[in-house]
Amino acid sequence: MKLFLDCVPCMLRQALEASRIVTDDIEIQEKVVEETIRLLLNYKSYRNSPDLARGIHQIIKTQTGNMDPYSKIKENDLEAAISIYPYLKEFLNCKDDKIYWALKIAATGNNIDAAVYKDINLTKCIETELDKNFSICDIEIFKSKLKEASNILIVGDNNGETVFDKMLIESLSGVTVTYAVRSEPIINDVTEKDAIASGLSEVARIVSTGCNAPGLILEDCGDEFIDIFNKSDIIISKGQGNYEALSDENNNVFFLLKAKCPMISRKLNANLNEYIFKYNGIK
Amino acid sequence: MKLFLDCVPCMLRQALEASRIVTDDIEIQEKVVEETIRLLLNYKSYRNSPDLARGIHQIIKTQTGNMDPYSKIKENDLEAAISIYPYLKEFLNCKDDKIYWALKIAATGNNIDAAVYKDINLTKCIETELDKNFSICDIEIFKSKLKEASNILIVGDNNGETVFDKMLIESLSGVTVTYAVRSEPIINDVTEKDAIASGLSEVARIVSTGCNAPGLILEDCGDEFIDIFNKSDIIISKGQGNYEALSDENNNVFFLLKAKCPMISRKLNANLNEYIFKYNGIK
Repeated sequence: MKLFLDCVPCMLRQALEASRIVTDDIEIQEKVVEETIRLLLNYKSYRNSPDLARGIHQIIKTQTGNMDPYSKIKENDLEAAISIYPYLKEFLNCKDDKIYWALKIAATGNNIDAAVYKDINLTKCIETELDKNFSICDIEIFKSKLKEASNILIVGDNNGETVFDKMLIESLSGVTVTYAVRSEPIINDVTEKDAIASGLSEVARIVSTGCNAPGLILEDCGDEFIDIFNKSDIIISKGQGNYEALSDENNNVFFLLKAKCPMISRKLNANLNEYIFKYNGIK
Repeated sequence: MKLFLDCVPCMLRQALEASRIVTDDIEIQEKVVEETIRLLLNYKSYRNSPDLARGIHQIIKTQTGNMDPYSKIKENDLEAAISIYPYLKEFLNCKDDKIYWALKIAATGNNIDAAVYKDINLTKCIETELDKNFSICDIEIFKSKLKEASNILIVGDNNGETVFDKMLIESLSGVTVTYAVRSEPIINDVTEKDAIASGLSEVARIVSTGCNAPGLILEDCGDEFIDIFNKSDIIISKGQGNYEALSDENNNVFFLLKAKCPMISRKLNANLNEYIFKYNGIK
């Protein structure tokens, strides 16, 4: 998906916010803003929003000298997610349609996005979110494909959300699952180290996509991953970044996300903050 | 007041939004965004936020060929404001402390800022806003100065808000009032033509500041206006733009506004969306 013109000011705002996560030094924040403005002069040369976001977060890394600016946030998010895992387990146990609810749990996990929750309210918040329906839900196609499937690829998004994805994987019996992660820290996205800390290696094979953008840009991925991608019976792509990078590819992908940006929700014909489980085409 | 780093991304967002008010032509919108990015490379050379905003809105005017992009919005705002004038009149009539409530009405008028009200809800909305207290209220200083004053200068802000200001002027007996307007259309700010359409010429002398920024930058004003400014017994400055341009000047100014931006509210030690009536110093 080509980037929206609206992404341009939004990226500049994000750059400033990200610089403030790392440092209180106004001069460095100014330098980040100035370098971002310079990069945005060429915004049209970027293929999509994750491609542009990678460029901007590279500026933050370079200017602050911190190669993982979101590490503390990621740590807190994972801790918070792990703390509500027992609640999620019990929640799912009481449900008849385990597949539907496991998908809903995994979609709800997409709320863990540099989250601002206080731990004390997280369960309450997730409870409310679980209660909301998908506004697009291609679950019948999914269930039908699942009957024939022997392997599934899940393309991860944010750290913490990983714990919710683990529950989805646990509910998928009779298939092997591969969980794809970013090749290096970018924003709060899941890397191999994070996936292991989330317990995902207990239930899936973890692979790096080879791509270090906050979205799955196939052209940037390694051959090993592309092979896995092409051979997967079902692909589940988590979150907005992966949707932005993958939505124009017509291949076997189920997008599972919360539409958190007005442009993405418009593109999906959904309202802001609605949950989406959308099949993108036939392999 | 020097501009905040936060103004930089906000200005880029405003530029895009303003371009969309004028045209659906994506190429022109892109051109506005690109030119704004180019201008923002030099954001540090601008004295304050209104100074930068003027530069950006000049780009919109040039690229769209429309010298008054907000004219329709201004027209609608004025119409909406005029429609609730009878309600305001009745509201004020029932009050004992006419000066306080006239100031509160004038501050509440600061809500009419490229407003999104549907006419049908405007009275209800204004009613709710009138019910809120000032969080900073230097009214005792004002009342004391008013006893000695023979002339008052009000520096206008948005069109439509003008109708609320008219009510303030009507409640100030025994003084002559001058109402200052922008020298040409900039955003939705009041110009001479707008002030006359708002009925302000019935109660005040209307003068142009000579400044075409969306805030009163004294260095840019004409000699005639500076003379009026210096000779006024009391100056009331309406809205954020004038506050941003004038707040570092230590002169006889009462700032009357709603703090609608997080940076301004922080500067004022107020919460977002609180009402302010603040005296800035001694002439």
